[in-house]
Amino acid sequence: MGEFSFIEWIRKRQKRRKDVALGIGDDCALINVSADKLCLITTDMLIDGTHFDLKRCAVRDVGRKAIACSISDVAAMGCRATVAVVSVCFPNNTPESFARELYKGIWGIADKYGIGIVGGDTISGDSPLCINVTMLGRDEGLKPIRRSGARVGDAILVTGKLGGSILGKHFNFEPRIREGVLLNKHFAVHAMIDISDGLTADLNHILEESHVGAMLYEERIPISEASVELARKTGNTPLYHALSDGEDYELLLTLSGGQAKKAIASPLFEKGTFSCIGEIVAGKKMQMKCPDGRVRRIKPLGYEHLKSPVRKRP
Amino acid sequence: MGEFSFIEWIRKRQKRRKDVALGIGDDCALINVSADKLCLITTDMLIDGTHFDLKRCAVRDVGRKAIACSISDVAAMGCRATVAVVSVCFPNNTPESFARELYKGIWGIADKYGIGIVGGDTISGDSPLCINVTMLGRDEGLKPIRRSGARVGDAILVTGKLGGSILGKHFNFEPRIREGVLLNKHFAVHAMIDISDGLTADLNHILEESHVGAMLYEERIPISEASVELARKTGNTPLYHALSDGEDYELLLTLSGGQAKKAIASPLFEKGTFSCIGEIVAGKKMQMKCPDGRVRRIKPLGYEHLKSPVRKRP
Repeated sequence: MGEFSFIEWIRKRQKRRKDVALGIGDDCALINVSADKLCLITTDMLIDGTHFDLKRCAVRDVGRKAIACSISDVAAMGCRATVAVVSVCFPNNTPESFARELYKGIWGIADKYGIGIVGGDTISGDSPLCINVTMLGRDEGLKPIRRSGARVGDAILVTGKLGGSILGKHFNFEPRIREGVLLNKHFAVHAMIDISDGLTADLNHILEESHVGAMLYEERIPISEASVELARKTGNTPLYHALSDGEDYELLLTLSGGQAKKAIASPLFEKGTFSCIGEIVAGKKMQMKCPDGRVRRIKPLGYEHLKSPVRKRP
Repeated sequence: MGEFSFIEWIRKRQKRRKDVALGIGDDCALINVSADKLCLITTDMLIDGTHFDLKRCAVRDVGRKAIACSISDVAAMGCRATVAVVSVCFPNNTPESFARELYKGIWGIADKYGIGIVGGDTISGDSPLCINVTMLGRDEGLKPIRRSGARVGDAILVTGKLGGSILGKHFNFEPRIREGVLLNKHFAVHAMIDISDGLTADLNHILEESHVGAMLYEERIPISEASVELARKTGNTPLYHALSDGEDYELLLTLSGGQAKKAIASPLFEKGTFSCIGEIVAGKKMQMKCPDGRVRRIKPLGYEHLKSPVRKRP
C-alpha cells in the first residue's frame, strides 16, 4: 500500500458535517467553533529511524522538529499557530535526562513562535522514540488558504532554496509562519502548501486538488547548496534533489502573475525570498521546460510512507 | 523516572496564556476560542505491547479503543466530543487490509458517538503499531468539570463496576459521555475524572488537585465480575483489582451529599449506575474503612508509565 492511496481511501469515506469547514486532504482541517471563528487543526507523527536518527542527532533537535513541522502546516494555510498537545512514547527504561532534553527542544521553538503546550500524553513501550504533535491555529479574520484554489495562468512561487534537507535543514528550518500570514493578509494567494514530501510531490497535491496542470522552468528551480553537496555523494543531479527531496518546509503557492510580481518586489519580505518556478496550465500534467526549449513530463517524486520509495532521476 | 513526576516537571514549566483557560493537568485542556466559547482538547497515545497486544486482539478493537479513550476524557469534563485527528505509525510492510481494519474500528465508534475524523497522519516505521488520537470537544454552554473542585464533605460517586478490565472491558467499554453531560447539566458536580490509571490512582489525582483527603468504605467499592474472575488467576483479592486496575473508563466524581442522593435516584440514569464509595475529608490522606470499623491508609495503586509498576495488595 502507499500512503497517498490509503489517505484517499480514508478521505472518500469521511462524512460531511456542519461543524467541519474542511476535512481530510489539506495541511490543516478547519473546524467551525462559533459563527465567525474557525479553528485550524493539524497533526504530525515522527518516529526514530524514519524522521530522525537518534544515533546521529540530539534529542533536543527532535523536539524542535516535531513542533516546527506542525507550525509549517499552519503556515501553509496562511494562519497563525496557537497551542499544541504533545504525545510521546519513550522507549522502555528511558532516563529522565533524555526526556527532559526532548522537552527543552519542544519549549525552545514553542516559545519562539508563541505557541502554548497545553497538554499531552507520556507513555512508554518496546518501541523507538515516537512523538505526535497536534497543533491548533486561528484564522484571525483571514481566510485559510487551501490546496484546491490554483487557477490556470497562475504563477507558481516557492520560498527559499530546495533540496538536500537531510544534511541539516530538516532539523533547523524556520517554519514560514511570518511569510504565510503576510501572504494571506496582503496578497490574493489562490493555493498554498508546505514542502514536506518534496517539491514535485507537493506541487502534485495542489494540481490534483485544483484539477489543473503545471509547467515548470528548469533553470528557475532554486537549488540549495545542500543539494549540490548531496549530489556529489549520491550521484544524482542537484536538480533531482531540489525536485524530489522532502522536508524543506518551504511554502509553495500559486497566485496571479500580477500578484506574484508584487509579492516578489514587496518590502514585506526579505529580498530573494521567492522564486517564480513556473505557471499553472490547463490539463493535469506536470511538465518541465528545459533551457534548450524541450518540454518533458515529470512525475511526482518524493517520500511516501508505507511504500518502498522508488526514486528515479527526473 | 515515573510518568506522574515527569508530567509534574513539565507542568511546572508551562506558561500562563490568556487564550488557555486550563492547561496541563486535567482530562482535557481548555482553550478560549472566542469570547464565550471554550474548546476542549485531549490527546492519547496507544502502542502495541503496552495498551493492547495484537497477538491476542483484533486490530479493529484497537481502533475502537483509541477513539473511546479520548471520548472518555471529554466525558470526564462533562462535555461533548466533536471531532478528532488520528495519527498512526504502521509497522513497515503492513498490508493495506490490516490498515483498513484499524480504520473500521475507528469509524464504528466515531459514528456511534457522532465524532468526525477530520484529519490525521499516516506513517510507517520499524516500530510496533502506534496510534495517537487528539479529540476536540465543545462546552455547549456548560462549565467543564475539573479535577480540582472537590470539597470536604462531598460524597464520592463512581459509575459501573470496577476492576479486571484486562479481561475485555478495556476494549469494549462504552465511554460515559451521556452520563458525563447529564451530570454536568443537571447536578452541581464539584470534581470529576475518568478511571484510566485505576480507582485509587485517579482518586489521588482529584485529591492532589483539590488539596483534600478521602475516606473510602471497603464494602461499597463496586467490584466487577471480571475482578472476581481475574483474582482467581492472580491470587490477588477482587477488591485489589477493583482498587488498582486501570482502563475501566468509568467516571469518578464528587458532589454534595444532597446532590449525590438526587443523582443516584434520578430517572435520567439507569438504575444502579452509581455507587457512593466514600467521602471527601480534610487533610491529604486516602483512607479506607473496613467493615469491622478499622481504618487504614491506602496508597494510590495503578499503572504508571515510565516506571516498573510496583503493585502490592492494599
